Amino acid sequence: MHAVTFQAPHEVRVEEVPDPVLTEPHEAVIRVEATGVCGSDLHLYTGRIPLEPGFVLGHEYVGTVLEVGAGVTAVEPGDRVLGSFQVSCGGCFFCRRGDFHKCDRSRTFGHGATLGDLPGTQAEQALVPYANLTLRKIPAGLSDAAAMFAGDVMATGFHATAGSGVRPGDTVAVLGLGPVGLCAVQAARVAGAAQVLAVDTVPERLAMAERFGAIPVHLADDDPRAAVKAATAGRGVDVCVDAVGDPKALELAIRLTSKAGTVSVVGVYAQRCDVHMGLLWIKALKVYSGHANVLGHLDRVLALLASGDLDPEPLVTHRMPLSEAPEAYAMYARREALKIVLTP
Amino acid sequence: MHAVTFQAPHEVRVEEVPDPVLTEPHEAVIRVEATGVCGSDLHLYTGRIPLEPGFVLGHEYVGTVLEVGAGVTAVEPGDRVLGSFQVSCGGCFFCRRGDFHKCDRSRTFGHGATLGDLPGTQAEQALVPYANLTLRKIPAGLSDAAAMFAGDVMATGFHATAGSGVRPGDTVAVLGLGPVGLCAVQAARVAGAAQVLAVDTVPERLAMAERFGAIPVHLADDDPRAAVKAATAGRGVDVCVDAVGDPKALELAIRLTSKAGTVSVVGVYAQRCDVHMGLLWIKALKVYSGHANVLGHLDRVLALLASGDLDPEPLVTHRMPLSEAPEAYAMYARREALKIVLTP
Amino acid sequence: MHAVTFQAPHEVRVEEVPDPVLTEPHEAVIRVEATGVCGSDLHLYTGRIPLEPGFVLGHEYVGTVLEVGAGVTAVEPGDRVLGSFQVSCGGCFFCRRGDFHKCDRSRTFGHGATLGDLPGTQAEQALVPYANLTLRKIPAGLSDAAAMFAGDVMATGFHATAGSGVRPGDTVAVLGLGPVGLCAVQAARVAGAAQVLAVDTVPERLAMAERFGAIPVHLADDDPRAAVKAATAGRGVDVCVDAVGDPKALELAIRLTSKAGTVSVVGVYAQRCDVHMGLLWIKALKVYSGHANVLGHLDRVLALLASGDLDPEPLVTHRMPLSEAPEAYAMYARREALKIVLTP
Amino acid sequence: MHAVTFQAPHEVRVEEVPDPVLTEPHEAVIRVEATGVCGSDLHLYTGRIPLEPGFVLGHEYVGTVLEVGAGVTAVEPGDRVLGSFQVSCGGCFFCRRGDFHKCDRSRTFGHGATLGDLPGTQAEQALVPYANLTLRKIPAGLSDAAAMFAGDVMATGFHATAGSGVRPGDTVAVLGLGPVGLCAVQAARVAGAAQVLAVDTVPERLAMAERFGAIPVHLADDDPRAAVKAATAGRGVDVCVDAVGDPKALELAIRLTSKAGTVSVVGVYAQRCDVHMGLLWIKALKVYSGHANVLGHLDRVLALLASGDLDPEPLVTHRMPLSEAPEAYAMYARREALKIVLTP
Repeated sequence: MHAVTFQAPHEVRVEEVPDPVLTEPHEAVIRVEATGVCGSDLHLYTGRIPLEPGFVLGHEYVGTVLEVGAGVTAVEPGDRVLGSFQVSCGGCFFCRRGDFHKCDRSRTFGHGATLGDLPGTQAEQALVPYANLTLRKIPAGLSDAAAMFAGDVMATGFHATAGSGVRPGDTVAVLGLGPVGLCAVQAARVAGAAQVLAVDTVPERLAMAERFGAIPVHLADDDPRAAVKAATAGRGVDVCVDAVGDPKALELAIRLTSKAGTVSVVGVYAQRCDVHMGLLWIKALKVYSGHANVLGHLDRVLALLASGDLDPEPLVTHRMPLSEAPEAYAMYARREALKIVLTP
Repeated sequence: MHAVTFQAPHEVRVEEVPDPVLTEPHEAVIRVEATGVCGSDLHLYTGRIPLEPGFVLGHEYVGTVLEVGAGVTAVEPGDRVLGSFQVSCGGCFFCRRGDFHKCDRSRTFGHGATLGDLPGTQAEQALVPYANLTLRKIPAGLSDAAAMFAGDVMATGFHATAGSGVRPGDTVAVLGLGPVGLCAVQAARVAGAAQVLAVDTVPERLAMAERFGAIPVHLADDDPRAAVKAATAGRGVDVCVDAVGDPKALELAIRLTSKAGTVSVVGVYAQRCDVHMGLLWIKALKVYSGHANVLGHLDRVLALLASGDLDPEPLVTHRMPLSEAPEAYAMYARREALKIVLTP
Repeated sequence: MHAVTFQAPHEVRVEEVPDPVLTEPHEAVIRVEATGVCGSDLHLYTGRIPLEPGFVLGHEYVGTVLEVGAGVTAVEPGDRVLGSFQVSCGGCFFCRRGDFHKCDRSRTFGHGATLGDLPGTQAEQALVPYANLTLRKIPAGLSDAAAMFAGDVMATGFHATAGSGVRPGDTVAVLGLGPVGLCAVQAARVAGAAQVLAVDTVPERLAMAERFGAIPVHLADDDPRAAVKAATAGRGVDVCVDAVGDPKALELAIRLTSKAGTVSVVGVYAQRCDVHMGLLWIKALKVYSGHANVLGHLDRVLALLASGDLDPEPLVTHRMPLSEAPEAYAMYARREALKIVLTP
Repeated sequence: MHAVTFQAPHEVRVEEVPDPVLTEPHEAVIRVEATGVCGSDLHLYTGRIPLEPGFVLGHEYVGTVLEVGAGVTAVEPGDRVLGSFQVSCGGCFFCRRGDFHKCDRSRTFGHGATLGDLPGTQAEQALVPYANLTLRKIPAGLSDAAAMFAGDVMATGFHATAGSGVRPGDTVAVLGLGPVGLCAVQAARVAGAAQVLAVDTVPERLAMAERFGAIPVHLADDDPRAAVKAATAGRGVDVCVDAVGDPKALELAIRLTSKAGTVSVVGVYAQRCDVHMGLLWIKALKVYSGHANVLGHLDRVLALLASGDLDPEPLVTHRMPLSEAPEAYAMYARREALKIVLTP
């Protein structure tokens, strides 16, 4: 089959690779019908996170089930399905607690050997482990794009807000308006945030956040701290989402958050960094960190996509055939796109 | 001053009563500028709940502070304020836990000696105990009617949904579409309910629920159980609000609720009754009961009223001078009004 | 193999039945090494709950794995294991939420066709569906009896207290001191209850509750309401466990519980009954109902059994060979035993 | 009256100061009968935290009410009382949410102008603002020392564990076995921790932790990471308490905590520091920070002190008259004492 493979920093290729082969009773094979290019792919593409040459990329997908193992009962061949970017066993200590994202047997599509050696979904077919948990039939009325967001970016925006303590009547700030930040804006509103302040420097992204119900705040041209004070009688926000993953963003998040509030760190941190622990402590803040528990939120996210309360369609800026993946990656790296959907 | 007093079942009168006199440091006196007639008033009016003749009625209100005791610091004379229908001390065991509605020193406006002997607010002035907790300045941009709902009916709708476990993505049913039920529809949506099914027999109320984002279900002409099954893949709703207070409503709530779901009983029960404990038990349901913890929810409700996410204005069907209170009560008893606002 | 089968009310028999045969990849077969007789068995034995003649009884067990299906990875042949009285699929809507006890594919050992047609464990061998979730290796240092309690009675006591809102510093009452009630006393203490009042009429059970750290209260000779008032400055208990399953117990639970407290109904209800909804409502109580979410609590219960904080050994009053099951049931029905362990 | 005043780093004096004068209706004046020297006092004593010369020190106390303002109803002259180290108004936005520790009008005894200019309790008398919330009658059977711990150190240990997500069956580590750490050990056990690992370098403190039910782990002579792995099947602890307040302790806490676990930072941080955000993030940890919400926990702590489940008596190593305060501070600074009680 054809698949998008990593070759070297800033070089991906569409090449012929072997079809996936089902070997365990919990696995399924799907025909991929749409697959996204995501900010996480960019870390691999640019070489910031190393990956084995030849590894198949991609972790956002919808498709049709081709074949299932003997233990798969949730879906059957012919079902149109969406799935999570990460697979979890459902049986380990962490899964039993509902912490599916920290499953002891977790594997992530398209991230190489360190994250479970699971080939990606930017391909004509994909092997899906733990299919009973990973896959869901696409609910009636849901577009492919909406379904594709459910298993990664939208569930991440949901995790960062509804899943991190946002309660009805809260004021929330979202720092960084990439796809995750914009989904966090939507999810914060769905969770009942009375006010959402959306902070970025890109006018188009600020405009889209405003369209999603947020108060746009330009990081440089406006004054985020003044904007938050004005919106909260000087108190600060109840929850601040760091969707950037940079020490400056974290510092701003700590400053914007109210006493006894929460900083939700969904942006990726991979290193040590300087943190204003003194300010964090005197304010008695809570910090929630890490990537999303997609499987823990997926049913709720799907219900809200089906009702139209969450709607990621406006984030899809480009649709391209899989064969144009090299150009898609290059565009994405130039920040010319929010979300690109590839069709095998 | 003039005040609306209860005389006998189906007889209220506007008569001259002594002005309130401030005697404790925690009290305030307000000039009442708008005061509602509520379903709870009807229980007193009809004699279902007995009340001493001559007692001043009313517990929904906004107004202007005239005078405060030495311990009142949250408001000062001249402030325009809203307040809770019930006052709580802020210092007892229950208040310390945030269970303000079960305060050991709680008193309810306009409900006679059994609920604390606190004269009502359908009057030109009212004495407000524990004013630091009971009163809030009316936020900029909030109408008097919206502010008046905050301290009673809207906070009750919020308590029955957001305050009783409704989470983003849930399906909720609301039984009974009086003002509380209609506010519960709004609050369920604000709390992230992907679907709200609203059940009643009055076409106008069903139409208003639909306008608030609910799926209207006629109790007799439609089939509520079939409607819930269709909306939830046969599972039942996550939370069912009984806003009626009748054994038949409770039975229906138990039947409509999903396994491991919640029945939120905000409708008033005053007696023993037959309950299908077997069904409740086999489904492993939770039941939340009692009147609303208004003071526990008030800040959140005000934020959502200010943002427009909650909007009770459509519920105000009549505005009348205080002097016409007898006619207002009669109309309300004939179910010709949803919410009547009286102006002293 | 030999197994205990139900024949008719008050008649069980040890007879030869076919060995279990593994047919699904998620199943395991175990050799049963200890199996309990439980209060739930008594409902079947007496005919209160109907059962097909010839059905194999029993749902408490420990044993050794003999054979596993291709999808079973959590245990392997030769492992000594304990297991839950009820099996859950791990993949349905309810399991995904952690509501394992309400799994759509749930089956209960030894309860006949209506609860999943799963032969019981009072036998030399047992077939165990969904073995990855159902079975756990017996932790080092845990006795067979302690392990056997983990999967049923002790997890039920835990569910009724730690799993139903008991928090450190609370006062708890437990009504009914059968094995579940006595385990609830232990679990309430482990969850931090500062005081536990244990109510029953049997002196030996009251004495055992006292040994477990409770204040014993004789239902008839003492005055439970006075005892609760004395222990709580008149407020009532924070959580009252109804481990009886009788309208009188429920009424007492409602009376003993503090305003804004919780009634935890773990005793079985199968019918409609008269409930004092008026009192429940005016006190603003919460009710938690249903049988235990054993799989949701099992890891915590096992940790506390291993540390010795929970210790059910004193509840084992009799150990008998499986062949004496008819006498064991007769004794249990005469209430001459708390817990009987049968050895195949 | 006589009072202990700060003069200069490492110099305190017992001198004559004016008696407190009640000026607000919410205040009380108490005669101090026992008052502690605490680790927080040491920060002031050594000059690490600056303080105005002449300011009265101390914030742990029990005593007898001498006089109350017109708004004080919870206590009356003659009552023997304990109180919180910090006072909170009960009426502001944060108090209404139960975040009493972040009250907008909060003041801390004996910490100078920056923390509210409230003279300390190491004196013959003390002025107590917001007395309805701050003070509690000493429950029958509670020693003065136990009561004194309730309002500061023990409530802090409770906050760091029971109040920071410790649940029955968890494994907890406590880093730093000063009075707060040792109280955290007790509180973790009360909250149901099946295992508590207590880490320090002082043999006496490790021995006391062991006496309180912990597994003692010497920071240098033992290997904390190995000890945690052995106790948790390699997973790490569910909650790790940093009771030190030092970047090395925080780093160790992050390393010892399980995926999806919680780091509870009750040790004081006042500056920026290097934090391993990468490790924190990949493990998806939660961080709870800040000083304790004493008023939020006080009722529960008092119940557990009254039942004997919490027992700080062993921490009292020295009792001295107030006049010997200079020697007490010097001893404490030399780490020769765990808790010194001064008697005016």
